[in-house]
Amino acid sequence: MTGDRPIYLDNNGTTPVADDVLAAMLPYLRDEYGNASSTTDLGRRAKAAIDKAREQVAALIDADPADIVFTSGGTEASNHAIRGFAEIAPPARRKIVTSAVEHPATENACKRLERGGYSVVRLPVNRDGVVDLSVAAREIDDTTALVTIIHAQNEIGTLEPVGELAALASKFRIPVHADASQSLGKVPVSVRQWRVDALTIAGHKLYAPKGIGALYLRRVLNVPNLFDGAGQEQGRRPGTENVAYIAGLGEACAIAAKRLADDSKRLEALRERLWTRLSAAVPGLIRVAAGAATLPNTLNVLFPDAVGNDILAHLPDVFASTGSACHAGDSKPSSIILALGYAPNVALGAVRLTSGRTTTETQIDAAADKLAAAWKSLR
Amino acid sequence: MTGDRPIYLDNNGTTPVADDVLAAMLPYLRDEYGNASSTTDLGRRAKAAIDKAREQVAALIDADPADIVFTSGGTEASNHAIRGFAEIAPPARRKIVTSAVEHPATENACKRLERGGYSVVRLPVNRDGVVDLSVAAREIDDTTALVTIIHAQNEIGTLEPVGELAALASKFRIPVHADASQSLGKVPVSVRQWRVDALTIAGHKLYAPKGIGALYLRRVLNVPNLFDGAGQEQGRRPGTENVAYIAGLGEACAIAAKRLADDSKRLEALRERLWTRLSAAVPGLIRVAAGAATLPNTLNVLFPDAVGNDILAHLPDVFASTGSACHAGDSKPSSIILALGYAPNVALGAVRLTSGRTTTETQIDAAADKLAAAWKSLR
Repeated sequence: MTGDRPIYLDNNGTTPVADDVLAAMLPYLRDEYGNASSTTDLGRRAKAAIDKAREQVAALIDADPADIVFTSGGTEASNHAIRGFAEIAPPARRKIVTSAVEHPATENACKRLERGGYSVVRLPVNRDGVVDLSVAAREIDDTTALVTIIHAQNEIGTLEPVGELAALASKFRIPVHADASQSLGKVPVSVRQWRVDALTIAGHKLYAPKGIGALYLRRVLNVPNLFDGAGQEQGRRPGTENVAYIAGLGEACAIAAKRLADDSKRLEALRERLWTRLSAAVPGLIRVAAGAATLPNTLNVLFPDAVGNDILAHLPDVFASTGSACHAGDSKPSSIILALGYAPNVALGAVRLTSGRTTTETQIDAAADKLAAAWKSLR
Repeated sequence: MTGDRPIYLDNNGTTPVADDVLAAMLPYLRDEYGNASSTTDLGRRAKAAIDKAREQVAALIDADPADIVFTSGGTEASNHAIRGFAEIAPPARRKIVTSAVEHPATENACKRLERGGYSVVRLPVNRDGVVDLSVAAREIDDTTALVTIIHAQNEIGTLEPVGELAALASKFRIPVHADASQSLGKVPVSVRQWRVDALTIAGHKLYAPKGIGALYLRRVLNVPNLFDGAGQEQGRRPGTENVAYIAGLGEACAIAAKRLADDSKRLEALRERLWTRLSAAVPGLIRVAAGAATLPNTLNVLFPDAVGNDILAHLPDVFASTGSACHAGDSKPSSIILALGYAPNVALGAVRLTSGRTTTETQIDAAADKLAAAWKSLR
C-alpha cells in the first residue's frame, strides 16, 4: 500500500453517496422520523418527501410519477417486473426472451421461471456484447410472455438496443422490461421513447445509497406484487417506506438530470485518456466492446497472458474489479466475457475500470502506470 | 396547534433513529462506501461491518449469527419465511395455522397461499387478544405446513404464547415462524428457548431506520429465497447490501440488549400513569387487553361513544394512532379490535398510545389531559 489515497475505479460496482444526497436524507434520519402511513403532521411530511422523490425519479426517465414504485434496490425491482409479467401472460405465452449478458437478478429470475415451466431464450451477442436483433426478430412471437433486457451491461458497458427490441415486442403486445441499473445518470433514458413497460433503477450506481431502488411499472398493466403486506406505495409495494433513502434517490435523480450531459463528456474523455496511456504501455491489450456504443465511464480490458485478479492483487491502492462486483472472489472467467466469444484464458485477463464523478486525470494517469507496471512484474 | 412540541405517542408506528445508531451508520454513508461483495479494502471493511451487525442482531434474539439474513424490513422477512415454509412442506401438508390478529404482512402472505390452494386456519383470540391454545392443539396436526404467529400484537400489545405453539408444532416437525417486529427491544426474545425456526425483525420499531430488517431463518432448513439475483448474504438474499442500515440495525440491537430491563420498567410505569390519569377523567373508558401479558409501552383504549379518529383530529399536537399505522386514514373499525369481540361502534373508539425512549412523565400527563378534554368536547 502506498501512502497515496487509493484510486477508486469501481464506480460500476458502487458509487459514493453524493453530499447533496446525504443532505437530503439526513432530516428523515433525525427529527422527521414520521411513518408515511401515519396521518399525523409528522407522517404527512414524510409522505410529502416521498411524493417529491417520485416526481424527481420520474423526471429522469421521462415517466409518469404514478408509475414509479420504490423498492429495496435493483434486484427486487427486476424480480418484481419479470415475475409479474410472467404471471400475467396468457397461458399460451410461456417464452421469455432475454440476453446472454444479463445481471444475475434477471438471469436468476428467469431461471426460476424456467424451473416453473417457462422457456427462456437468451439472445446471443456479438464480440462487442450487442444482442443479435435478427435472432430477436425470429424469437419474439405470439408465444412470448415478456422481453427483459439489460440496457447497459455492467461489466463491459455495452448499450443494448432497447427501443428496437420494444418495437419488435409491440407487434405482439408483449410487455418489455429494461434494466437501467447501470445506465441511469450516465446516458439518457426515456421510457416514453423506448415504449417499455417496466424499468429497473438502482440507487447505489447513481450516488444514492445501497438499499434503495425503484421500479417504473405501468400501473395499467395490473402486475401482481412480489410480496404482500399493508397498502404502501398505492398498494404496489408493501412495507414501511424508507423515507430517508427515497428522498436521497429523488435528489440523486435530480442531480443526475442536471449533470448528465457534462458528466458524460468528462467521463468519456477520462476513459479515452486511460485507454491511450494503458494500451501504449501494454502491447496486446484488448479493449472489450470497442466497436459498440458503451457507457462513457466504462473500460473493460483484457491483459494478455495475465489474470486480472492477480494484477489487482498487486495493486491494493487501485480499487477496480475483474467482473461484476456481485460475484467477485472467485477466479473463474466472467460469463459475460465468455459470452462475447473470448477463450477462457483470454477472458481471465479482464479488468474493469470504471470512472465516476470523483475521478481525476491525475488518478487516471497513475492508475494506468500502476496497472502496466503490475502487468509487467507478473510476466 | 399549541406552541408546545408535539407529544409523540406512536412508537409502535415507528421510532426515531437513536443518535448512536445514526452515528454507527454515517461512516458507511460517507467515506466507507464500499460494496461488500468487492474484494478491495473498501469492500472488505463493508463486509466486516455487516459481519459485526449480524452478531449484534443474533445476540439480541439468542441465535446463531449464521442464521441471520438482512432484509429490507419486516414485511419482506415475514413473506420470505411464510412462503418459504409453504414451499418446502410435503404435498400432504397444505394447512397454515396462524391467528386472527396478524399484521398485514403475515395475513396477506397467507391469503396469497390460500389462493394457491393452501388452507389457512386463523386461531380465534379471547377478549384480550390471546390465541386459543385448545383450538391450536386441535388444528396443528400432520397436515399442517407451517405455523406463523405474531409475538406482540402491534395495535393492542398482547403477547402471544409463541413457545407453547412451537411445542405443539414440534410434535409434527412443523416449522414455526414468529413475527417479533413489535416486541424486539421491549420484551426478551430467545429463539433458542422458543424453538422457533424463523423470526421477523423490523429495524424501525427498534430505533433503527425504516427500510431495514432481518430474518432469523435456520439455514439447515434450506428455505428457498423470496427473489433471485447474485450471491449476497451467503446466497440467501440477493441485492447489494445496505451496509449503513445494517450497521445501524446491529447497533440498535446492541443498545436494546443493554437497555431492555430498564426501558421495560420505565415504559410500564409510564403506561400505568397514563391509564390512571386518563381513566379517571373519562368514565367508561375501556382498557383493551387488560387481562393479558402485553408490551410494556402499549396502551390501547376505547373511548365511549366517540370515534378515535375524531379525538385525534382535535389534537394535532398529540401523535398517536387509531389502529395499525399501516392502514391509517380510513375510519372503519380496526379488524384487530373487532377480532377481540367488540361491537363495531365500540371498536371505533380505539386510540393506541405507545410510549418510547423519548417519552416523559410530563408528556404523559399532558397527553392524558388533552385526550380527556378532546373526548369531552366531542360529546
